[in-house]
Amino acid sequence: MKHNNQRKLNTGISVDCVIFGFDLEELKVLLIQRKTAQKAPDSRFSLPGDLIYNDETLDEAAIRVLKELTGLENIYLEQLGAFSALDRLSKIEDKIWLESIREQPNERVITIAYFALVNLNSFHPSPANFATSASWRPIQNVTSLAFDHHEIFESAHQQLKAKLQTQPIGFNLLPDKFTLSQLHKLYEAIVGKELDKRNFRRKMIKLDIVKKLEEKQVGVPHKPSNFYEFNQKNYQKLLKEGFDNFGF
Amino acid sequence: MKHNNQRKLNTGISVDCVIFGFDLEELKVLLIQRKTAQKAPDSRFSLPGDLIYNDETLDEAAIRVLKELTGLENIYLEQLGAFSALDRLSKIEDKIWLESIREQPNERVITIAYFALVNLNSFHPSPANFATSASWRPIQNVTSLAFDHHEIFESAHQQLKAKLQTQPIGFNLLPDKFTLSQLHKLYEAIVGKELDKRNFRRKMIKLDIVKKLEEKQVGVPHKPSNFYEFNQKNYQKLLKEGFDNFGF
Repeated sequence: MKHNNQRKLNTGISVDCVIFGFDLEELKVLLIQRKTAQKAPDSRFSLPGDLIYNDETLDEAAIRVLKELTGLENIYLEQLGAFSALDRLSKIEDKIWLESIREQPNERVITIAYFALVNLNSFHPSPANFATSASWRPIQNVTSLAFDHHEIFESAHQQLKAKLQTQPIGFNLLPDKFTLSQLHKLYEAIVGKELDKRNFRRKMIKLDIVKKLEEKQVGVPHKPSNFYEFNQKNYQKLLKEGFDNFGF
Repeated sequence: MKHNNQRKLNTGISVDCVIFGFDLEELKVLLIQRKTAQKAPDSRFSLPGDLIYNDETLDEAAIRVLKELTGLENIYLEQLGAFSALDRLSKIEDKIWLESIREQPNERVITIAYFALVNLNSFHPSPANFATSASWRPIQNVTSLAFDHHEIFESAHQQLKAKLQTQPIGFNLLPDKFTLSQLHKLYEAIVGKELDKRNFRRKMIKLDIVKKLEEKQVGVPHKPSNFYEFNQKNYQKLLKEGFDNFGF
């Protein structure tokens, strides 16, 4: 792992990021394959993460990890929680990787997990200096991950589902202009079940947090749909009134 | 600070607990005054907390801190988040305390905060081995605390308010039997504003998460009120139905 030699690493604390993206069809998560000291990839997938530097906060470390992978700044990022199970790095494969990369492979590392929401079409992930590859995986294909990352991923997915009930955070996963069908598909992908299309459209329009644009899709094989954009102003108004029922 | 010499401390990670209690009149928080090496109290109040041992999880460390102060186990406890500001221990008074107590007073410590809800009448706080005193303070009197503890306290208070909108967690702060007036007073204390009494009672009864008991208050200077208890069964039923609107 190439680290800035001017800065001192905190060898007991890391950040790991669950980065969700939506390609207008499926909900995906950004996974990496890690570098080892021999530059041979660890074939298992894991969440992107890194030890923190002693001169940065946890938020700054998470932003750094995200920026290295995505090139993006100012994206939706939230602390999920700290994970400290005593056996979180104790699988045989974990040990082999740690021995290849760390000066003190047996030192305990507690990780603080973050979850991020990005518009997947706005960039192509590039492997950061701690990874040999970075790629989007549909969430239903994520069945096992290195370390305790599957537990962290599950926890982030639950948090995403729960948040969607009280905040319209899904908009962070969409391009600025989207159709109601795309929005509906996103909600179905997050909650993991079918949602009645007509009820969904009706409620979304009644909430008045999407604004219809004078612009339609072009070059689609079906009747072109209207584009909408998120109505940030009306949403802030609802928030001020204490409204928090955005669930479907 | 007397620590178990058999166990190795993790000198870079601590837990701090925001313990809320309700005395049927006011919402309070449990604060301590810390021991120094000279056994002289640090006069400033702080949240109870401690470095973690390397053979315990964060949850276990928080449970240990709580048990030392309250003697209680199995109380409502939830991780609030990690706090890592670079200047979180850098006030002059913080430095003096750290120098009196720590082998490496300048080592960076990241803290993971927890919030706990207890029925204040079920015990008397006793100072733990890291404190010279422990006492309940009304939340509106908490204006400054040692380290970054005021920020942590504020964050916990926000979290408590927000949670009350989606889960009836207030019941953890009450005795098993309570009157609707006491419940109403608790909600007012948490949200920090007056709530119409009749609407409150009506909604609470409509939610059907409190059960009227065949028992009234005794020895009160007013007309004795009926006792109620929390209806855990009906609440679980609502949860299963995806209901989450418990706000007032």
